[in-house]
Amino acid sequence: MPKHVNEISDLKLIFEPRSVAIIGASRTPGKPGYNILKNLIDLGFKGELYPVNPEATEILGLKAYPRVDSIPGRLDVAVIATPASTVPEIMESCARKHVKGVVIISSGFSEEGNTALEEKMVKIAQEAGVRIIGPNTTGVLNTANGFTSSFVPGMGRAKKGHVAIVAQTGVFLGYMLAYVISSQQFGLSKVVGLGNKRDVDDVDVLNYLGQDPETKVICMYIEGVSNGRSFLTTARKISKKKPILVLKSGVTEKGAKVAVSHTGSLAGRSEIFGAACKQAGIIQVESFEELIDFAKAFALQPLPKGKKIGVVSVTGAGCVIAADSCVKTGFQIPDLSTETVEAIRKISPPWHKRIGNPVDVGPAIEVGMHSPLEALNVFNTAFNVLLEDKNLDSLIAVFFGLYRSFPMFETALSDITFIKERTLKPLLFSISGDKEATDEITKLLESNGFPVYPDVTRAIRAMSAMCEYYILNRA
Amino acid sequence: MPKHVNEISDLKLIFEPRSVAIIGASRTPGKPGYNILKNLIDLGFKGELYPVNPEATEILGLKAYPRVDSIPGRLDVAVIATPASTVPEIMESCARKHVKGVVIISSGFSEEGNTALEEKMVKIAQEAGVRIIGPNTTGVLNTANGFTSSFVPGMGRAKKGHVAIVAQTGVFLGYMLAYVISSQQFGLSKVVGLGNKRDVDDVDVLNYLGQDPETKVICMYIEGVSNGRSFLTTARKISKKKPILVLKSGVTEKGAKVAVSHTGSLAGRSEIFGAACKQAGIIQVESFEELIDFAKAFALQPLPKGKKIGVVSVTGAGCVIAADSCVKTGFQIPDLSTETVEAIRKISPPWHKRIGNPVDVGPAIEVGMHSPLEALNVFNTAFNVLLEDKNLDSLIAVFFGLYRSFPMFETALSDITFIKERTLKPLLFSISGDKEATDEITKLLESNGFPVYPDVTRAIRAMSAMCEYYILNRA
Repeated sequence: MPKHVNEISDLKLIFEPRSVAIIGASRTPGKPGYNILKNLIDLGFKGELYPVNPEATEILGLKAYPRVDSIPGRLDVAVIATPASTVPEIMESCARKHVKGVVIISSGFSEEGNTALEEKMVKIAQEAGVRIIGPNTTGVLNTANGFTSSFVPGMGRAKKGHVAIVAQTGVFLGYMLAYVISSQQFGLSKVVGLGNKRDVDDVDVLNYLGQDPETKVICMYIEGVSNGRSFLTTARKISKKKPILVLKSGVTEKGAKVAVSHTGSLAGRSEIFGAACKQAGIIQVESFEELIDFAKAFALQPLPKGKKIGVVSVTGAGCVIAADSCVKTGFQIPDLSTETVEAIRKISPPWHKRIGNPVDVGPAIEVGMHSPLEALNVFNTAFNVLLEDKNLDSLIAVFFGLYRSFPMFETALSDITFIKERTLKPLLFSISGDKEATDEITKLLESNGFPVYPDVTRAIRAMSAMCEYYILNRA
Repeated sequence: MPKHVNEISDLKLIFEPRSVAIIGASRTPGKPGYNILKNLIDLGFKGELYPVNPEATEILGLKAYPRVDSIPGRLDVAVIATPASTVPEIMESCARKHVKGVVIISSGFSEEGNTALEEKMVKIAQEAGVRIIGPNTTGVLNTANGFTSSFVPGMGRAKKGHVAIVAQTGVFLGYMLAYVISSQQFGLSKVVGLGNKRDVDDVDVLNYLGQDPETKVICMYIEGVSNGRSFLTTARKISKKKPILVLKSGVTEKGAKVAVSHTGSLAGRSEIFGAACKQAGIIQVESFEELIDFAKAFALQPLPKGKKIGVVSVTGAGCVIAADSCVKTGFQIPDLSTETVEAIRKISPPWHKRIGNPVDVGPAIEVGMHSPLEALNVFNTAFNVLLEDKNLDSLIAVFFGLYRSFPMFETALSDITFIKERTLKPLLFSISGDKEATDEITKLLESNGFPVYPDVTRAIRAMSAMCEYYILNRA
């Protein structure tokens, strides 16, 4: 497959350009050509920035140029955000300028039946050796150097981290990013919107992200794969090193039909794709919510080495619901070691006689709730002995937030040892209850590296996905 | 079953008492005996309130009494929040006072192996004809008259509405309530924590809620049912009038074992319970999150009369993902009527040629996004024609919130006809994206009666549950 020979160095240039032109840069806030420039400035992109707009002399404090040809010096990458009909001519000017890669934001190509226009534009690029991301996409985000072609407002708030997101579809990717940036504590490494995939495709990007030292987890939203075999071969290789989580839509007959009219790609059959994913070590997810649920577990916690799970909760109902969910998901809930039982007994009131797995620390907290220091001691003891118990591979903590009870939790959770000394076993939290308290505890725990889920069943599914990945790729 | 003959009038008295004693009332904020009194005051309970505490003369501005016997006049209900060992003696004083019902907050009875203490206390009550809710519970909330025995902080913020919640377990119910009150726009009618169910049980409460005019949806968290046959007969009768949603835990062998040590109840086998629920018209849910997801759909929207669903989204990916999820859940996605297609075509740009179900209104919004008024016209047209389309039984809208784009959405969504004139078909939203924008749009739509879900798969599962209820009970 000669097409993929140079993909990594080519993509490296597109992700790490020294100079970028924004073609269709705009002075009107809210327009894509304004938002892209604003995001680049907010992210502190350090390369040269050239806004291109024949009717402006300055945009957002930067000198604007009427055409690509009038830009001085070398140009690595062009971001195109003008109407589809203007793209072939712009591509010609990019070719004359020896641009290495273009990101085409514009839509209205093959996805709307305008195949001839797309072919014309691609032919010009191929003859000049210009790589294309898109068209019909939000393009690229690289938090390491602050480069982006995204027009999603607020992208400047993106945190650096280790999760990469790849999506076929631009607008949806924009919303996904808006969600992650505004509500998640884990950071991003690279983001790629592939759009119509007329040149750079899933395989190119997988290869690039497989080698990217910033990326520890790869999340993909895929409607259709054009070169399935190559994709699976690449995925199998990279899965051994990094988890690949895939949300595949268009898996039903009707969904596939809709996908054709959306990105023009032919979606594969559900069962075939599912079986192929398993062979390639890919973790398939059922929804965008699940994609993020799993991503943060993989990004923040170590892998469980087996199916033996411990559960600790502040209420009996939490224990029962968690036990059901663990068993349904294929976990074993083994007995605790004698040492663990004794340590829990020591912090529990005498009337709390039945101590086992799941562990109900509610009675211990009732005894210790008179001061944050006592509550801290309960948490400290329970988490430490459970994480050290040789009978367990992983731990789920089912907690709740109460109206105005946050200070006690905050003191207890932020000070205790388990936060400071990371363990070799994964620990996932489920926290529900009062919204304000829950939001605050969630933020606190996640920014300390402990993923939090609003429902225990979701925490357990995430842990199960980590088990599945371990068994498929590392066991 | 003579035990249940008088349950409705008895429960009516417990839910609508004219005078209430809080035994174990406390001056220390955070203690159950303080929180209960505070919640009653915040909810504006209009009956007589008697704090009972031998060491206080006044609590929260109310005259305190040393003993039940020293309370003047008639006493309908006593709420007991003192240590378990003191309860038999208090029950004797309640019997002398001809109290009609007691709510026992205290724990440390059969759930911790102290069966003899529980038997002693129950015997005194039964001989005097005193009904018991609990022990080991948060008890009761009635938003209609402001009565509560709940010690969950902030209960005074509970909104009046039509969802009733019944749970076996007190602490968990407290957290459930904290969640609903702090984050949901739908209101509550009645809440009951049954605890150890030594007298008032699921059947009593079902009968009472079946007749309660405020209650339109009944949500239950059940660990075990003692009189299964009676429960199912009652449920079958009430399901015809009102949906009953049940989260049953202890359905796995391990979960059941844990449930025994939690509320002392014997949990039934999963498959048997599932089949029995179906026969009784009960909708079984898999998690607490799903319970709330379904409850708000049933509380706020009409039932779909069939499986033919429409999808409208602002992005193609939303259409594809929704189509997959609809098909997997058993929905049909029929063609739209010619009139609908023509109406959508009129608001779409000419290049957007493929108009069908799901409906991608992204292109129309791109055209109309220059002013809130134009966006409003797009929403207005799309929702109205889709809700009027005779080919559809229900509608799912897949929307997204963007950073600082909220004003446009707000203007558009709050003014349009579909909000003002309720339809006979259900409409559920999925809204994701920027947290702040999503939270605001969600609040706006839900307070106007339109449930919002953070993931499209959850909106579609809720719609599917409404279909299932309609087919089981109304078709």
